[in-house]
Amino acid sequence: MKKKGLLLVISGPSGVGKGTICKEYLRTHDDCTLSVSATTRSPREGEIDGVNYFFLSHEEFRKRIDADGFLEHAVFCENYYGTPKDAVMEMIESGKDVILEIEVQGALQVRSHYPEAVFIFVLPPALCDLEERLRGRGTETEDVILSRLERAKAEFKYIEKYNYVLINDTVEEATNRLDAIVKAEHCLLCRNYKYIEKEFLNDK
Amino acid sequence: MKKKGLLLVISGPSGVGKGTICKEYLRTHDDCTLSVSATTRSPREGEIDGVNYFFLSHEEFRKRIDADGFLEHAVFCENYYGTPKDAVMEMIESGKDVILEIEVQGALQVRSHYPEAVFIFVLPPALCDLEERLRGRGTETEDVILSRLERAKAEFKYIEKYNYVLINDTVEEATNRLDAIVKAEHCLLCRNYKYIEKEFLNDK
Repeated sequence: MKKKGLLLVISGPSGVGKGTICKEYLRTHDDCTLSVSATTRSPREGEIDGVNYFFLSHEEFRKRIDADGFLEHAVFCENYYGTPKDAVMEMIESGKDVILEIEVQGALQVRSHYPEAVFIFVLPPALCDLEERLRGRGTETEDVILSRLERAKAEFKYIEKYNYVLINDTVEEATNRLDAIVKAEHCLLCRNYKYIEKEFLNDK
Repeated sequence: MKKKGLLLVISGPSGVGKGTICKEYLRTHDDCTLSVSATTRSPREGEIDGVNYFFLSHEEFRKRIDADGFLEHAVFCENYYGTPKDAVMEMIESGKDVILEIEVQGALQVRSHYPEAVFIFVLPPALCDLEERLRGRGTETEDVILSRLERAKAEFKYIEKYNYVLINDTVEEATNRLDAIVKAEHCLLCRNYKYIEKEFLNDK
């Protein structure tokens, strides 16, 4: 019996290192792929349709919103961004796990469309580590750093909507824990019930 | 902040290999220990009180039942057997994970006393594998094998009370998956909420 993949929704404050964890996880897991977003903004040089983004016209994007074609979507700088439902579901049905790296508002939308997704919030070991990391980049002004910290604190309020917290102490440890979460979720009774019913609960 | 350990309740039909998986897991995980049962039967040669069993008089055992001192208990061949609540809780509070290898009726009792335990049902890849394994031992009569298979089928009916299924394809794979389940459970939001609340949700 073909097993469905998982939708892994990964959020966390700017600077926490969730991109690095996802990249490292994807590098070592062929059975997992990154979700490709759709957008109405124009492709930048070198960007390929279907790889970096699905590039859609405003009209097409709105048509798909009306047809409930997105797991989540938002407007940013007058352009639409969203996660096309069909593309993700196809991957999942084929048995691949899909990672969706997304902010909290988007995650909440995904949750209402696909509650069987796995919601993971990446955290620093402590709040002061986040500030340290943001400052450590050395690329941001004090104002930007403070506004990111404020935004992080606002995002933390949504943490109870998530299933797991992934403490990013080291990339290696955090990636290992992400691997454990994925393996464990695949062992959940509810994700195996069809097979179990057929094989063990049928009175043969 | 000291983290609590997990109570891992592991069931599965006779012959499925759950003992081997637990032994292998314990061998490689110092942070996990096997629960020690209490019993009213007499110690056999070489058995040590507090190591193999806690040996109790019938009177003492019944007193502890009345005081709600067991996570589960049962009578077998006119002797009581049970899992002392205090000993398990002490380990868990100290941060150690505790494995309780137990049949389904006992697991149901544990569930009502301590619902935050992790319930894991060990299964063979397919039903025919179980029969093969029971026959492969070469030590049981046909009658015993058939009655064990019937008992297994009766136990499967309780599988929906468990959180996870652990398919024992190979001991190594199954032990790895058990490791993943334990790691993932330690990442669950609900098991880390106190720390998160203190560190990230306090408006400092």
